Amino acid sequence: VSRVLVTGATGFIGRHAVAALTRAGHEVHAVSSTGGTVPGAQEVPVHRADLLDTGQASGLIESVRPTHILHLAWDVTPGRYLESDSNLAWTAASLHLLRKFAGHGSRAVLAGTCLEYDPSAGHCSESDSELRPTTLYGTCKDALRSVAGSFGRESGLSVAWGRVFFVYGPDEYPARLVASVARALLEGEPASVSHGRQVRDYMHSADVGEAFAALVDADVEGPVNVGSGAGVTLADLVAEIGRAAGRPELIRLGERPALPGEPPEIVADVTRLRDEVGWQPARSLEAGIRETVEWWRGELQSGPG
Amino acid sequence: VSRVLVTGATGFIGRHAVAALTRAGHEVHAVSSTGGTVPGAQEVPVHRADLLDTGQASGLIESVRPTHILHLAWDVTPGRYLESDSNLAWTAASLHLLRKFAGHGSRAVLAGTCLEYDPSAGHCSESDSELRPTTLYGTCKDALRSVAGSFGRESGLSVAWGRVFFVYGPDEYPARLVASVARALLEGEPASVSHGRQVRDYMHSADVGEAFAALVDADVEGPVNVGSGAGVTLADLVAEIGRAAGRPELIRLGERPALPGEPPEIVADVTRLRDEVGWQPARSLEAGIRETVEWWRGELQSGPG
Repeated sequence: VSRVLVTGATGFIGRHAVAALTRAGHEVHAVSSTGGTVPGAQEVPVHRADLLDTGQASGLIESVRPTHILHLAWDVTPGRYLESDSNLAWTAASLHLLRKFAGHGSRAVLAGTCLEYDPSAGHCSESDSELRPTTLYGTCKDALRSVAGSFGRESGLSVAWGRVFFVYGPDEYPARLVASVARALLEGEPASVSHGRQVRDYMHSADVGEAFAALVDADVEGPVNVGSGAGVTLADLVAEIGRAAGRPELIRLGERPALPGEPPEIVADVTRLRDEVGWQPARSLEAGIRETVEWWRGELQSGPG
Repeated sequence: VSRVLVTGATGFIGRHAVAALTRAGHEVHAVSSTGGTVPGAQEVPVHRADLLDTGQASGLIESVRPTHILHLAWDVTPGRYLESDSNLAWTAASLHLLRKFAGHGSRAVLAGTCLEYDPSAGHCSESDSELRPTTLYGTCKDALRSVAGSFGRESGLSVAWGRVFFVYGPDEYPARLVASVARALLEGEPASVSHGRQVRDYMHSADVGEAFAALVDADVEGPVNVGSGAGVTLADLVAEIGRAAGRPELIRLGERPALPGEPPEIVADVTRLRDEVGWQPARSLEAGIRETVEWWRGELQSGPG
């Protein structure tokens, strides 16, 4: 039996990965810095550990003795994670965790990001697109990927690197695009967005979690884009939210300036994910957005807790 | 006054950097995992700390409060450092140290390696040559460089990265090329080497240390090759050792197979070091090898300690 240790297990993506790994019959161990339970997978044991503390990380590996690790934990606080110095701490913590894990396990899957690619790549291919991260977050992820791959080859550890594109879904940080537009419309407030011509690859958090679970079970090594493969303009994305919320008229396209240097297109080439991992997303954008808006409707109706 | 914290200060390069920084008038603080004194700079305070222990590293930065850091410490044990998993630990430790230092200091100089370059680069230029490390050591150094540069731009820290080429000098690890040939010849033993047509950039450890001291005082940022700029074939290098030892006839050229995939040429482009840092090596290869062989002669005559 595979014993899979999942870091970031209670997070936006992690909870879905835990649920999918459990459904697939694995013995799953979750890690969380705050303890508690994994939403949607309450039966999974949660080990409370601060992975930024090397002693706690080592102790965790030695007590769980996982055969597989899915390492999703990182600081992704909206508004500051792209440039925060916590990226250095998470890079260091990830290297420590990987090194300790190699003494016990056989396969590691880590979370990367589309921000490793050159912003002008457009259609991002693992084999053909240039890597040129322009943020500290992207640089740290790229550095970790490079070291993890080399370390895997040296140590005999099988290492895969899932590059996450754009994610939406229930229980997202309220400041992020889909969550903030959905909340505004459901509260009857206008939602100001930029011109909306940016093309992005959006995938539901449950699909992202399930893709990572599939990566744990696969034997593919190296970088694998975790995206839908389909680009959507932000204008179409927010229009979908408007329809789901029943308030399309509250969307104010072009009221916000686009960020300087914002790339026109970031879309995943999903050839590896589809053909080598054998995985495809289950949800259409329309269905996923509808589910997400309904989740926020329930959340807002239940009021402050 | 600049207060410079030097890691790896008692090492092969570090001791010379400490001496040069002291001569230049800096308040130098040395770090060593074993304590003791810095050879050739006994007056410099040595702080005993294990940089792989994040708590000790933080404590060190907080007690010394350096304005500058010269980070040379790494595991470079001959025969295993290129592929050792300690490279991950040193990458993590370096990230932690850099992050803590940024809260206090203004300039960081770190040691990189010519093994960051594509092995086929030949004449290695910081601006024009491709980076494609093929060892875990080179990959980890490359990753650290990338993160340190991005972090410097974000945090306002001035960061330079000295890429070390080939180093020889007194008190080298006995297993390394110059030391092992010198010792064999001085003991009257034959020294077997490969075909010797590989071209390398060799510089005396005192020159390398002085180059790093100059980098601390400069304001150049990013990668700077730390080499002589002059290529020498290994056949000419060992012939120089043969002359200095007075036993050229003991050199057995071609008796060892060359390592598979060994690059034909690795030489530094020193334009940045010479023109932007304003530094050039003081020692010719002939004088440096003579001094090194004489050092080994003294060492071997004094016998086991």
